[in-house]
Amino acid sequence: MEKLTVVKVGGKIIDDPLRLDAFLELFSKIEGPKILVHGGGKLATDIGDKLGVVSRYIDGRRITDAATLRLVTMVYAGLINKTIVVSLQGKGCYAVGFTGADGNLIHAQQRPVKDIDYGFVGDILPGGVNVALLKTLLSAGYTPVIAPITHDRMGSLLNTNADAIAMEISCCMAVLTSVTLVYCFEKKGVLHNREDETSVIPYINEPAYRQLKANHIITEGMIPKMDNAFDALNRGLVNVTMGCAADLTELLSGKKGTRLQWI
Amino acid sequence: MEKLTVVKVGGKIIDDPLRLDAFLELFSKIEGPKILVHGGGKLATDIGDKLGVVSRYIDGRRITDAATLRLVTMVYAGLINKTIVVSLQGKGCYAVGFTGADGNLIHAQQRPVKDIDYGFVGDILPGGVNVALLKTLLSAGYTPVIAPITHDRMGSLLNTNADAIAMEISCCMAVLTSVTLVYCFEKKGVLHNREDETSVIPYINEPAYRQLKANHIITEGMIPKMDNAFDALNRGLVNVTMGCAADLTELLSGKKGTRLQWI
Repeated sequence: MEKLTVVKVGGKIIDDPLRLDAFLELFSKIEGPKILVHGGGKLATDIGDKLGVVSRYIDGRRITDAATLRLVTMVYAGLINKTIVVSLQGKGCYAVGFTGADGNLIHAQQRPVKDIDYGFVGDILPGGVNVALLKTLLSAGYTPVIAPITHDRMGSLLNTNADAIAMEISCCMAVLTSVTLVYCFEKKGVLHNREDETSVIPYINEPAYRQLKANHIITEGMIPKMDNAFDALNRGLVNVTMGCAADLTELLSGKKGTRLQWI
Repeated sequence: MEKLTVVKVGGKIIDDPLRLDAFLELFSKIEGPKILVHGGGKLATDIGDKLGVVSRYIDGRRITDAATLRLVTMVYAGLINKTIVVSLQGKGCYAVGFTGADGNLIHAQQRPVKDIDYGFVGDILPGGVNVALLKTLLSAGYTPVIAPITHDRMGSLLNTNADAIAMEISCCMAVLTSVTLVYCFEKKGVLHNREDETSVIPYINEPAYRQLKANHIITEGMIPKMDNAFDALNRGLVNVTMGCAADLTELLSGKKGTRLQWI
């Protein structure tokens, strides 16, 4: 199989129709096989407020009770996923929307209750990605667009972190081909000084990452993202880049953003 | 390709979780390639009421303004479609959810404004069904589950009647293989006397249909459904049966329901 590009786009881009459209225009132009994984955005909270579904978070993770699961299924798998798919189709990209339940694309297990009961939150199982299905679709010229929802193969949908989905899919596909994983968000990359968008760190390796954490330059929200990324590098992923959605083309050519390296 | 079964399930079954689950149990047991097309149900109206989206209808068709399109995208493509998909997956059936936008499965055009502006309502274009994609999925053992939403290939989703989708897909697939189309609803079939569930008419041909219409035995809601079905027969479909979702197995074996015949 040709070189594969996996792109994760985060919530704040999705909340802004103009930035989302500009991003999808860039994404649609990526040559060769590609996969888009999208997050949730504030939309679920806004619609949930109107429906009387109260969002609760612990450590930045939404607690997913039955009402919240219905809400995120509507918003992530319905509204956001299909808005992206139809827009990409209009731009000539053969997008196909998925949750992890569709075609058993991503098999997860409900997170066991220790201190916290996260509710219907799923962690992807080892070997849980249906590589054969992705290969069939990509070979036929289709572009999977994946919402952050998985399933347990016993009839329950599960809410799953989109960064983790992007990472797991990239690692599983790396067995077949060379994979580039790009995390797109609103910042220009990992910044030395978070007030200064020109202070992008172009390369970070594992020792540098530990140093940046110790110096509190990389903090809360970025830590699970970076841990995920280094985990992916460790498992044989060729290339992980992080940066601004508006710079997607330059992120792929290595001219902008932060590239993570194992050594 | 093996004989294909296309099943359309209507709104009232979808509104009732227990009946839906029983129906999906029967559907999952159908041998050979199969496709499920589902309607919308009252859920969209109920959720719309909470969100302040007012449903308007003309001649039984929902008028789809931008807010309604977002609503039905959430409810049909998100909540209902994924509820069905994950349930079928739990029953061992490799369901994959689709709208017409996904993989350009169904290309429609927005209905031109004559007397009535239906808004974002789409009519399927001739040749608008992506037969190659369905063939690829069915051959790989997957079961497409299709929500009543299509697209115009220019970036807009469109609300489309589920009966029409089931009919159009059946006709297009009939070029490749023998197709059985089953319309499932809450009645036992087409009834001589609508108060008497035992008065099912087992066979109806075209002249009989005209007679039943003239005698007001077949009335309003059933007429577009029957017109659709005879249109399908006219275009080479082998078999169209209508009846109760709970009788799916007997509808397929010809033991219950109403079978439509050209002659």
